[in-house]
Amino acid sequence: MTYRAPVADIAFTLKHGAGLSPTLAQNGALAADDVDAILEEAGKFATEVIAPLNTVGDKHGTPLKDGNITMPPGWKDAYRSWSAAGWNAVSLPDAFGGQALPHALNAACIEMWNSASMAFGIGPVLTMGAAEALAAYGSDELKRTYLGKLVSGEWMGTMQLTEPQAGSDVGALRTKAERAGDGSYRITGQKIFITYGEHDLTDNIIHFVLARLPDAPAGNKGISLFLVPKFLVNGDGSLGARNDLRAHSIEHKLGIHGSPTCTMVYGDKDGAVGYLVGEENRGLACMFTMMNLARLAVGLQGVGIAERATQQALAYARERRQGRAIGAKDGSSAIIEHPDVKRMLMTMRALTRAARAICYATAGAIDMSHGGGDQAKAADARAALLTPVAKAFSTDIGIEVASMGVQVHGGMGFIEKTGAAQHLRDSRIAAIYEGTNGIQALDLAMRKVPLEGGAVVRAYIGELRNTVKAVQANNDPALGATGARLGEAVDSLDRATAWLLGQVNEAPQAALAGATPYLRLFGTAAGGCMLADEALAALRVSAGEPAARVAVARFFAENIAVQASGLERAVTESADSVNTADAALAG
Amino acid sequence: MTYRAPVADIAFTLKHGAGLSPTLAQNGALAADDVDAILEEAGKFATEVIAPLNTVGDKHGTPLKDGNITMPPGWKDAYRSWSAAGWNAVSLPDAFGGQALPHALNAACIEMWNSASMAFGIGPVLTMGAAEALAAYGSDELKRTYLGKLVSGEWMGTMQLTEPQAGSDVGALRTKAERAGDGSYRITGQKIFITYGEHDLTDNIIHFVLARLPDAPAGNKGISLFLVPKFLVNGDGSLGARNDLRAHSIEHKLGIHGSPTCTMVYGDKDGAVGYLVGEENRGLACMFTMMNLARLAVGLQGVGIAERATQQALAYARERRQGRAIGAKDGSSAIIEHPDVKRMLMTMRALTRAARAICYATAGAIDMSHGGGDQAKAADARAALLTPVAKAFSTDIGIEVASMGVQVHGGMGFIEKTGAAQHLRDSRIAAIYEGTNGIQALDLAMRKVPLEGGAVVRAYIGELRNTVKAVQANNDPALGATGARLGEAVDSLDRATAWLLGQVNEAPQAALAGATPYLRLFGTAAGGCMLADEALAALRVSAGEPAARVAVARFFAENIAVQASGLERAVTESADSVNTADAALAG
Repeated sequence: MTYRAPVADIAFTLKHGAGLSPTLAQNGALAADDVDAILEEAGKFATEVIAPLNTVGDKHGTPLKDGNITMPPGWKDAYRSWSAAGWNAVSLPDAFGGQALPHALNAACIEMWNSASMAFGIGPVLTMGAAEALAAYGSDELKRTYLGKLVSGEWMGTMQLTEPQAGSDVGALRTKAERAGDGSYRITGQKIFITYGEHDLTDNIIHFVLARLPDAPAGNKGISLFLVPKFLVNGDGSLGARNDLRAHSIEHKLGIHGSPTCTMVYGDKDGAVGYLVGEENRGLACMFTMMNLARLAVGLQGVGIAERATQQALAYARERRQGRAIGAKDGSSAIIEHPDVKRMLMTMRALTRAARAICYATAGAIDMSHGGGDQAKAADARAALLTPVAKAFSTDIGIEVASMGVQVHGGMGFIEKTGAAQHLRDSRIAAIYEGTNGIQALDLAMRKVPLEGGAVVRAYIGELRNTVKAVQANNDPALGATGARLGEAVDSLDRATAWLLGQVNEAPQAALAGATPYLRLFGTAAGGCMLADEALAALRVSAGEPAARVAVARFFAENIAVQASGLERAVTESADSVNTADAALAG
Repeated sequence: MTYRAPVADIAFTLKHGAGLSPTLAQNGALAADDVDAILEEAGKFATEVIAPLNTVGDKHGTPLKDGNITMPPGWKDAYRSWSAAGWNAVSLPDAFGGQALPHALNAACIEMWNSASMAFGIGPVLTMGAAEALAAYGSDELKRTYLGKLVSGEWMGTMQLTEPQAGSDVGALRTKAERAGDGSYRITGQKIFITYGEHDLTDNIIHFVLARLPDAPAGNKGISLFLVPKFLVNGDGSLGARNDLRAHSIEHKLGIHGSPTCTMVYGDKDGAVGYLVGEENRGLACMFTMMNLARLAVGLQGVGIAERATQQALAYARERRQGRAIGAKDGSSAIIEHPDVKRMLMTMRALTRAARAICYATAGAIDMSHGGGDQAKAADARAALLTPVAKAFSTDIGIEVASMGVQVHGGMGFIEKTGAAQHLRDSRIAAIYEGTNGIQALDLAMRKVPLEGGAVVRAYIGELRNTVKAVQANNDPALGATGARLGEAVDSLDRATAWLLGQVNEAPQAALAGATPYLRLFGTAAGGCMLADEALAALRVSAGEPAARVAVARFFAENIAVQASGLERAVTESADSVNTADAALAG
């Protein structure tokens, strides 16, 4: 069973959810039909070209020999067709060859690349982020030399923060940059866990490296960002000498074996030639441009792996026959007929679609933030609020759904050749990289919820309440208790938010203890409301399979949103049980 | 970081929980000091001999060549020392060399073997189950020839149910047994997913194979159990000819690579020689003797892997320094100081200990069922009620805790050499084999809860209420809201149980839809109360680290037991959302 891009489903969520509907309403240049055509083509590429490479990548891995990495069979051709078709450039600025299409549309594409193969999809995500950062902060000269090729994907980019002592704590990094006197810098040091740090997909690789100048202040305020090409580039744009950097080793990982994870060494000789991006000591701001997009993209990996795991489990459950379901006539039933299996499959589907809606809405907010005025400002704050939820909720459910996918397969799920286990292995990294989900929860609780004194989150909760009212006003009996359960979930989120706003400054230790259940509560209430919005939209326009969307929204509300009250308590009443637990963790 | 058996912790739970306290109160022959001495020795063996073999097994696997499997380096010596020391015989009948010690004590040992290495621990578990079945159902002649060596572990046993079309639905099996005319049978057919089906740890392997006689009725009522030795045994007990069976292939699995999972072929020539165990067509009853013990043992695998993952995460969190915790003076803090990490570690610890208490209590009920009279009958029903919870709750949390263990390690968790990922890979099977956790949930909801018209489960809930009252009567402020939250959880379980009893016959489809959240609710309420019992016992006797036990009980009650109301709703209010979901699963 391989992946088939759920183009119609994605298109509906995109056009009727918060992802693309505001853009479509505003932007005469992009028609709904164009969106369908682009998604159709992307889905075709993901399904036909990338998806078959997924197990190939898992089996072959990315062997490193003499500093060179050979990517799995077929990957180079696939990548080159992919970039030649313009898929790297979808939402990148048009000044350097990008198509400047909405991020929300690109988000849908990113989901599909990553459903097809997470290990394949993560490389381009970093290249896109690098291009965004360079476009925003790079000098004209750097842009002239590098931006066009990063936009097209002819060269890939990397994002290099982590060092052994500097993981979640980026400020602790030690890689050095010294001024060379000619405007360039010389980089020495070591970076670890560098995704796509070396490979043979492209002729050059453009590394974006955080490093510290000799006179830099300590911590986060002394970090600068450098563009460090694998091969130096001559004045005419041709490739010059090899730069003083190399992949020293690769990691043997639980999953995404097709994605090379490298330890990079800079400065075996005189230091690698690097060029400053943005201002000295202001590198973290540049890196955050990359990182926010990368966080959303990693959230989309969670959606993608969940979608693929759901498809595979569904296909198996339709074929596999065991036992006789109640009411079935003769012989054995397909296991999808058994209520317990149905519950698993519906949980998978509902969580996947909720996470998708959250991620697309985040991308939509980014799109709306690019205009001007108060609306853009509000959209920017909305994107800031939703980004940690999109990243952490989606990747958490990615793992849960992939694990449930193994379970649906029974014993076959544990056998590697079935493929369900690979999804679980692959899914596990997304909750860790680009800021662990714990870091996302802290970001949400301590920085995003307090934005504008809480006005940003309160406005968002107000919108969720409108959804609840709309559901309650609808008389479709198929919605069951959707309105009531979502209403309770939003109430829980509202109270937990008020509590959090009271703690952030007064009792930060308490706020920190509740951060992770708060993020889950947020994703649960928001995701449930978004699914209900989709169901109402489908009923309204009599398209997008209304019965199916109603069933998913109802299942989420009655089975998943009901966790809200327990999560609320874990946020608001459990600080003591966390912070006084040292006795139980000693010894 | 390797495993260190938590002997003191285990001993406390065993002696002060339902596992061993009734036996100790009754049985003058076994003193509490003996228990400590045995646990100490078992812990030493698990820690020093088995635990170091765990990564060896993961790396080497169990290659099959010409029908023979070579076990990983060091495994044969370790197994032989282990069985020579008497560990296989702990709770087996004394007539054939067993020590006839309580199952609860053996349960603690099984946990430790499996913490040390799940792949190592699963083999003996099956041998013990085979010995129990043979002791209960075998003819005197079969016992004379095989039982002593199965009790000592000199020969290992296997348990062979599964065929490609017969997984959860055992009744669909097709392996044939024909009467040979001399009292023996000839077996032909194929079995899949056979754990330890072939290996070089012992000179003979005794297979317990379910097969169907030519004139057998269809389904479950036509299954017979046969003892089928790898090597036939001569009259003098020496090994004779090779039997007509072989391992045809082994599976490449997600985890437990040190445990050979074989496809077995019977009857290349005239059929393998087999001997009937019990009566013809009554094999399933015999197999259930093995299976119930195996289910508990697999639950203990869940506890074991959770314990090991928790130990490893704790060790890492104490060493790894990132960021500065609130209130810390200078430099970076150990990540265990960060509330969010503390929450993860406490969740791991609390879930692990709750599952342990449930498994030990199940074993204790088995012990008490071996006496006579009403008490034994009640204990037998209690064991029947708790077994599916012990199996499914413990293995579900095994996966969750192992996954959280990866998360605590951050990027290092995804790197195989760290070892945290192996625990996640290993843990995944336990929710599948010996009856998937979905099957356990159905067993609980449809067969165990209705026992004696619900009197068995009601009596159990009554005991949980007594715990709640005892907690509420205690004034220790460190218990926080433990009493209140557990009271609510037990209320939820009570209402969900009443609902379930009303549905089982009237609306089985509804009961089936709620089975999985019901089992989780049951484990949550029961586990929370058992942790509270332990905390109260520790306070009472001023031993067993009262402060730590109170902290764990409180954390569980305030952070995990609070999920009860959401689970209750998913049981009692969600049948329609599950059973009308077909539209959302089509296409």
